[in-house]
This record gives sequence, C-alpha cells and structure tokens, in this order.
Amino acid sequence: MKNIAILGFGTVGAGVADVIAASHNKICREIHDVVNVKYILDLKDFPESKYADRVVHDFDIILNDPEVEIICETMGGTKVAFDYTMRALSAGKSVVTSNKEVVAAYGKLLCDVAREKGVRYLYEASVGGGIPILRTIKTSLAANEIYGIDGILNGTTNYILTHMKDDGTSFAEALSQAQQKGYAELNPKADVDGDDACRKICILAALAFGTMISQSSVNCEGISSVTLDTIEKAEKFGGSIKLIASARKMKGEKIDISVSPCVVSNENPLSNVSDVFNAIMIHAQHLGDVMMYGRGAGKLPTASAVLSDIIEIIKSGKGSEQETWTIADPGTLSDNFKVFDTFCIYVPYSFGARKEKVLSLFGNTTESFEDADGFGFIVENISRNKIRKALHSIDVKDYSVFRYIK
Amino acid sequence: MKNIAILGFGTVGAGVADVIAASHNKICREIHDVVNVKYILDLKDFPESKYADRVVHDFDIILNDPEVEIICETMGGTKVAFDYTMRALSAGKSVVTSNKEVVAAYGKLLCDVAREKGVRYLYEASVGGGIPILRTIKTSLAANEIYGIDGILNGTTNYILTHMKDDGTSFAEALSQAQQKGYAELNPKADVDGDDACRKICILAALAFGTMISQSSVNCEGISSVTLDTIEKAEKFGGSIKLIASARKMKGEKIDISVSPCVVSNENPLSNVSDVFNAIMIHAQHLGDVMMYGRGAGKLPTASAVLSDIIEIIKSGKGSEQETWTIADPGTLSDNFKVFDTFCIYVPYSFGARKEKVLSLFGNTTESFEDADGFGFIVENISRNKIRKALHSIDVKDYSVFRYIK
Repeated sequence: MKNIAILGFGTVGAGVADVIAASHNKICREIHDVVNVKYILDLKDFPESKYADRVVHDFDIILNDPEVEIICETMGGTKVAFDYTMRALSAGKSVVTSNKEVVAAYGKLLCDVAREKGVRYLYEASVGGGIPILRTIKTSLAANEIYGIDGILNGTTNYILTHMKDDGTSFAEALSQAQQKGYAELNPKADVDGDDACRKICILAALAFGTMISQSSVNCEGISSVTLDTIEKAEKFGGSIKLIASARKMKGEKIDISVSPCVVSNENPLSNVSDVFNAIMIHAQHLGDVMMYGRGAGKLPTASAVLSDIIEIIKSGKGSEQETWTIADPGTLSDNFKVFDTFCIYVPYSFGARKEKVLSLFGNTTESFEDADGFGFIVENISRNKIRKALHSIDVKDYSVFRYIK
Repeated sequence: MKNIAILGFGTVGAGVADVIAASHNKICREIHDVVNVKYILDLKDFPESKYADRVVHDFDIILNDPEVEIICETMGGTKVAFDYTMRALSAGKSVVTSNKEVVAAYGKLLCDVAREKGVRYLYEASVGGGIPILRTIKTSLAANEIYGIDGILNGTTNYILTHMKDDGTSFAEALSQAQQKGYAELNPKADVDGDDACRKICILAALAFGTMISQSSVNCEGISSVTLDTIEKAEKFGGSIKLIASARKMKGEKIDISVSPCVVSNENPLSNVSDVFNAIMIHAQHLGDVMMYGRGAGKLPTASAVLSDIIEIIKSGKGSEQETWTIADPGTLSDNFKVFDTFCIYVPYSFGARKEKVLSLFGNTTESFEDADGFGFIVENISRNKIRKALHSIDVKDYSVFRYIK
C-alpha cells in the first residue's frame, strides 16, 4: 500500500482526495499497488466529510509515520508550506505541490534537498493547472534546446480580456463578473497585476533554461490599463490583446522574461485561447513550435496534475532523479526595454503627429492603418528604447506600444 | 556508452542521426551516459554522408552485436520493418519507431513480445509527428479516464483545406501545391482518403482505451469530395471544414471511431490549426479538455519524438513496463450511422424542399441560415440514420450532412 498525506483541505487538497476516490481502480492499476489517503492535515475539522476520520491537526503525526511516503502540499501560502515541505523532504518523504509561490521562491533549495535525500519534489500543478507542461519539457523535449516560451498562464485575466472583447464589457465589469463566477479573488491584485503569471513563467524558465530568475526582478505589467479602446486597436492590428508571459534565451546566456499585454496575431493559436483556459507555446530546437492548451485552474484539473506527479513518483521509484536549477546571477535578466522584438505602435493625431514623418523614422513598417484618432503600424526588429528615442526625437510623447506575437 | 542502430536512412532516420549529432551534449547530460549511433542499416551506401562508416546492409550484424541495446525502426513499409522489429525485440533489444503502419497492424503483438522479453517498444513518433501526445496520455493523464479524442492528424489534408479556405484555390490546385512543397506524396491517396489519419486515431484509441480497432473496419471518409462550396457553407455554420479523426468511448464498452470532414466551430481551438500543423484534443475525466498542437510531420520534429523514446528507455532502464492492449472483439466498433451527435445539415431548394417542413421534422434546431440555393441548420443529439430517415420521409434525398465539433 502507498500511503499519502494531504496538507491543506481546500479546493485542490479536496480535489486530490476526490480524484483518488473517483479513479481508485485506474490509479491502482497504474501503480500496481493500492493508494491510500492516510492523513489530511488542516486547521479545521470536517465532520461532514467522508474523509473526517483522516483529518489531523499535527504535522508531526505525518512526519513521524514511516508509512507515509508521499506528501501533497496543497496549503497555499509560503511560510508554513515551505517549512513543512522542507521537513518532509529532509525526513526522506517525497513532496508534490500545486503551490507556485513556494516553488518560485524556494524551489531551488527544495529540489536540492530532495536530490540529496534521494526523494522527489514535483510541481506539475504549479504551472498551467491541469496542463502537463512541465513533464513535457522534462521528457518529450529532452533532446531539444528550448529557445523560448510564450504563455497565457493566468485564467482570470484571460477571462476578463475575452469578455471585454466579445461582449464589449469594461475592465471593471468583466472583473466583477469573474469575481461573481469565482474565477477572481476578492482581492484580484495578484492576477490582474500579472504577479501570478510572473511566478509561473519564472518556474517554466527555471525548468527550461536551468536558471531561476527572481520574480521580483521581472518587469511585470498587468492588464488594468487595458481598455475597450486598446482591444479595438488590437483588432485593427489583426490580433487580440492577451496577457502573455514570455521567457527567452538571449545571446550570451542572458534570459529575457516579461509579462505584458501583447497583441497576438489572429494566425497564432494563442489568439484563440478564450475564457479561463490557459495555453503555453514552446519554441524548441528540433520540434519547432508546440502548444499545450487546457484548464489552467480548477479543483479537478489541478488535482489531476498532482496525481500525475504522485503516480510518477510511485512508478519510477524513490531513486529516480530530481531535476534542479541554479539561481540566476545578477545580470542574467535582460533589460526588457533593450530587447529587440516586433512591436505594434499607435500614435494619436491629437498632439500634431504626422503619419509620414513618424513612419519615416522606422524604415520598413507593415500593417499600418489609420482611424479617426490616429494611426498604427508594426515594426520588426526594434527595442522599446529605440522606439521611444525615435518618437521623442520628433516630440511625439503620447503613443502606445504593444509587443506583437506573430 | 549506449549504442543504437538506425534501420532506414530516409528522412526520419537521417533526422535521428542529425538530432543526436546536433544535441549530443544535451542528450548525454539527460542520460548520464554517451549515446552513439553504431550502425545505420540501408540498402544504399551513403559515401558522401558523415555517417558513411556506420552504414551496413546486413541486419544480422546489428542483431548479433550485444552492444546495440536500442534499435530505431524508421524504414517505413510493413513487411521487412515488422520482421526486423520482431527479431530485435525477441533478441532482447528495445525498439522505437515512427512507423505507424507497423504499429497499427502489429502493435499488439510487438508490445506483447517486448513485455515478455523485458524490453520496450515505443512509438511516440507514429502519431502527431513531434507532438508528444502518447507520452502525455500514458503519464500525465494516468489518473483520468479518457472519454474521447478529436484530432487533426494529417498535415497534408489540413494544408489543402487551409489553402482552399484562405486562398479560394480548388481542391486539385491545393493538392498540387502540397505536392510541389513536398507535403503530399505523388500518390496522395493515403492522405487524401483519410487512411493515414485513420491509422493514427486507431493507435491513439488503442493507447487511450486499451483496445485496438482494425483500421479496415473503420468508416473512413477523406476530403476529395470537399469543394469550395462546402467550405463556404461551413463558414455560414460558423466554422471551418477540417478532417477530424475521432475516437470515443460509448456506452457498454463500445468504441466509436470515425474519420470525416467535419465543421469545427470557430470557438474550438482546433478550428485555428492551419497548414501542415496537427492538433489533438483529448476529453478527459478530471482534466477536462486538453489540446496539444505542433508539427505533425517533418524530419526533425519526428526525429525529436524518436529521441524522446530513446531517452525514456535509457533513463527508465530495461525493466520498465511495456504497455500493451487487446485486439477489439467484433462488435466493439459502433456503427457511425447510429451514433448520436450534433450535425450540420444543408438542404438545397432545387428539389422543392420547403424550409418550414424540413425544420419541423427535427424539433429544436439552431444556427439556421438561408442562402440563394438552400438552407442550413444544426441539430443536436441525432444520428445520421435518423437524419436520413426524417428527410426521406418527405422525399428530400439531396442534402449534405457534416458532424459539428463545438
């Protein structure tokens, strides 16, 4: 029998118990053994739950039970979750988690301890909910260098942007709808400001490039400044506004990470990712572009990802290898404003800007359009700094710039 | 050192050698060992190739070399490829393949032999080219029952349909373009008639449901009857025509498999899969809908999938478990014409059909439209047989029906 303990009986923790109950036969066939939820650690009791008899309040009971081999950390938060994870790994128990805050902040340390102790620390559910993106990078892309990743990694913001575009609702209205549906927290800051997407792209970059960039050093722009007008402009550029979290390998070991609203071309499959769905496009050496799409959050999808990690640990045995990464040196992160890329630029007429004069600054531009208020155009192979410098040189200081994802 | 042999130095075989050369350091880091292409079996010599010294013409040299642990079968065809694969597995060597014909026809037998001999027979590259769909089903979806799969599994037909829609070229013109670009064979029958997609969906169904349906028993419809008019009609239904290969679990252990041109709703991410790209949407118990998108063919993407299998075998060791499946009993396959689903129906006026009378046969219909020649509507929860019976009851015998993928 394989005994597991669940830390935190919230949405994901309860989902893990439910998936184990609902798919008990299938999981047991997979692992050639019987899986059993021996303990559920929570501050509360759950007298009505069918798992009431497994609820404990003292982590030491779990830690000191040699029968518990795998611990699911689905508590959220960082302080206690990190402490329990560290103690579990140090005691030779494998840990699986959906807790992106802990992975982004302490993943390197925890992976190292797991490696040293010959156990595993797996975190598939921390990025993309149910989408099996981390395992795909680790296994199926093993022969590929990864050049870059572009992801829609936050369901709440994607829901808001989808409904602004499709229904013409304002940002505030769409956010309020998302809150009513339970997609957004009452305090939506972490979603709306891009922090959640930022954590996830840092985890993806750590796995793909072997180096963890601290979230706090990333230039992270959310969607609160996106208006219906922005969305209309994006359509004129032939795309949709999406909150894109990107990580790219640059020349000389530098890494570029950004989270920002981008214009995604209608030709790109990311443009068709609606509502709370997430998708991650990987640009790989031999494989080319590969995208995974699915539910980036939710009780059962996330629990399904936790279970895939549990099954991997049981099937591959304790001795299987724990990946780890380094912590990036200062200077590894590129300055976003200096990175060369393709940008959509919109200049309003209101301050006297003349189209011919502006376009003449940039050489080859494509997809230009004019509307009543101004004009838009796309420039390839330029940086945000160079755009600013060029426009400032003719005193154009009122303009908008979005990265363009072809 | 891990020595491998490549059988067949065509596009994929040469791709495997090239990926190993280009990513030698990365692969060696992954496997903690050195990978070496010891032999390349082909009828021809390749005096100009940098691998010329590894080319052999006698399979027995490979079979009798105890240093060769893994054989890549990238020959194509079934007879010799099957024979060599069987002999390799029987001799205790693992085999990885991109050969969908062999997997579809003899996969069960070969998996059984591999299992018996404690080696592996892996075939990631046989479905979806570089897209890591089989490994995802086996690992990340391990806790999920799979309810169904809808895939765009053939790049050639998707290229043709994309260009018919986007450029208004006829089927014949688009096919000729695909041949010029090397996407379609000179004899395009296997692609255009849906046989290639059919093989792949049978392999996917075998892995997902544990039962292999014989390709010859599947009702397989290609795209040769799709015209520009069909494509226009699909747009009026709010979608695009795509060649969809589907497999679904039905009640009572039955399985429904079909390959047919379907109207894919613009809301569905499969509708945005263009050119030679492939995509596979899986409907899973806990995870919900998850889609993988990428290059379904090509030298390096396919070779990358072959390498992922080689790396899996080396990392997991010989003793790891070979999955296998059963061969479906007669009667397991549903009769497509009796399966309840959602259909787009178009009835021309030419034979005197009256819209009100036709619609009154079907109860609730949605998304109806009229054009100069006739009218279209969508009916849910109905079978092809029932549609035919209803229309025949009022002497409407000239109509078109497409499955609708929401």
